[in-house]
Amino acid sequence: MSTNSQDIISNSGIIINQDKKLYSFNLDTILLYNFAKPAKKGKVVDLCAGNGAIGLSLTAKTKAQIYLVEIQKELAELAQRSIEDNNIEEQVHLINDDLKNVQQYIDHDTVDTIVCNPPYFKLSDQTAIKENSVLAIARHEIKADLTDILKTIKILLKENSHAYLVYRPERLSELMSEMLQQKLQPKRIRFVRSTKQKNANLVLLDVIKTVKSASLKVEPDLVIYQHDQVLSKEAEQIINGKC
Amino acid sequence: MSTNSQDIISNSGIIINQDKKLYSFNLDTILLYNFAKPAKKGKVVDLCAGNGAIGLSLTAKTKAQIYLVEIQKELAELAQRSIEDNNIEEQVHLINDDLKNVQQYIDHDTVDTIVCNPPYFKLSDQTAIKENSVLAIARHEIKADLTDILKTIKILLKENSHAYLVYRPERLSELMSEMLQQKLQPKRIRFVRSTKQKNANLVLLDVIKTVKSASLKVEPDLVIYQHDQVLSKEAEQIINGKC
Repeated sequence: MSTNSQDIISNSGIIINQDKKLYSFNLDTILLYNFAKPAKKGKVVDLCAGNGAIGLSLTAKTKAQIYLVEIQKELAELAQRSIEDNNIEEQVHLINDDLKNVQQYIDHDTVDTIVCNPPYFKLSDQTAIKENSVLAIARHEIKADLTDILKTIKILLKENSHAYLVYRPERLSELMSEMLQQKLQPKRIRFVRSTKQKNANLVLLDVIKTVKSASLKVEPDLVIYQHDQVLSKEAEQIINGKC
Repeated sequence: MSTNSQDIISNSGIIINQDKKLYSFNLDTILLYNFAKPAKKGKVVDLCAGNGAIGLSLTAKTKAQIYLVEIQKELAELAQRSIEDNNIEEQVHLINDDLKNVQQYIDHDTVDTIVCNPPYFKLSDQTAIKENSVLAIARHEIKADLTDILKTIKILLKENSHAYLVYRPERLSELMSEMLQQKLQPKRIRFVRSTKQKNANLVLLDVIKTVKSASLKVEPDLVIYQHDQVLSKEAEQIINGKC
């Protein structure tokens, strides 16, 4: 049975080729796409792009040149197929390489917006990694850890430009601490909860590159379910693209 | 007209002497008192105690010896009067000194719980400071800054023991970053909002002293108003001590 499929994020109109056996986009991806406010022109980079779901969909929000950076060949091939299927070769470009080599492709201090859904988990669960290495690399800090990713964001971004990230609240203090070391200041964060009575399970961050100290806004929560599997109005709009 | 008054936090039963001209307790104090889970015995320290509202009220929650550390003479005198008025001299002890001298009174690595409502604001607004120096010192980083306070917490706490803090979300990333440098790991945080649609205006933190990395829980928000000045059930319980 084929595990290939095509899907779409919100109402972007962009088709995403997926292989569910490898790694398919999920709620994190949809939320980050909706949270991100890309610059209208210039350069946008999707770091740890996977099958490119966010970067590809951002063509619905910006005229900027979009670069997908993905180390894994299997996922990069899916992304390249989606670029071709959507006829957006002139706007979206694939970089199938380690993010540590990104300066071979993109000059430092030239990027207007970065989006990044990084691996969340520290390298510990060896069993999971053996079973599915593509998924494991997408989820665990195997090829790049938090410091590598934040360093790359700092290198690429123009001063005062924004990066949008999705992460796990469990590691928020480590994330914030590492960010400050890379001169990245969170300006706006938003927690995501399945219901308002639950602990947060995701956090969305709007970060700027600056040496100045910034004042953080903790915005109203994004609550996914109103009650009993009924989506909240906002989640319904985001997930199903209804307005 | 006298600005002296007596007040009580939640249903602790402890009378707090206040001088509203100097600095009187407010929502931050009440919320931190309710959030804190002091050790049942041993030593508890209220750092930046002000008129001692939190430390004094904690006698309703613990049999531990409680130390109030307050640098300002005017506030320390109010705290001492409250100790006497409540007849709790055997449990609550006042240290009217700079927290940087705290080791003259309490040995390092011996404290079971710390509560702290630190000054939130950086030293910038000179006008406010000239007008009311007692209030200014309570609110601004004049006598102690964030690093001084977190260092003191690290010095006093036993390994794996808890500190409870209330702070402003605007400086959360700086707070988390400084904490990690002092081996303090947030375990549990809770944001406070006036309504669920508003940005958070306070954050409550439950922090442990440990060298191990910790997993952070971002608990459900504390929303103060349900709608139109009507307190939420939880806020009603906390503020008016109703159960």
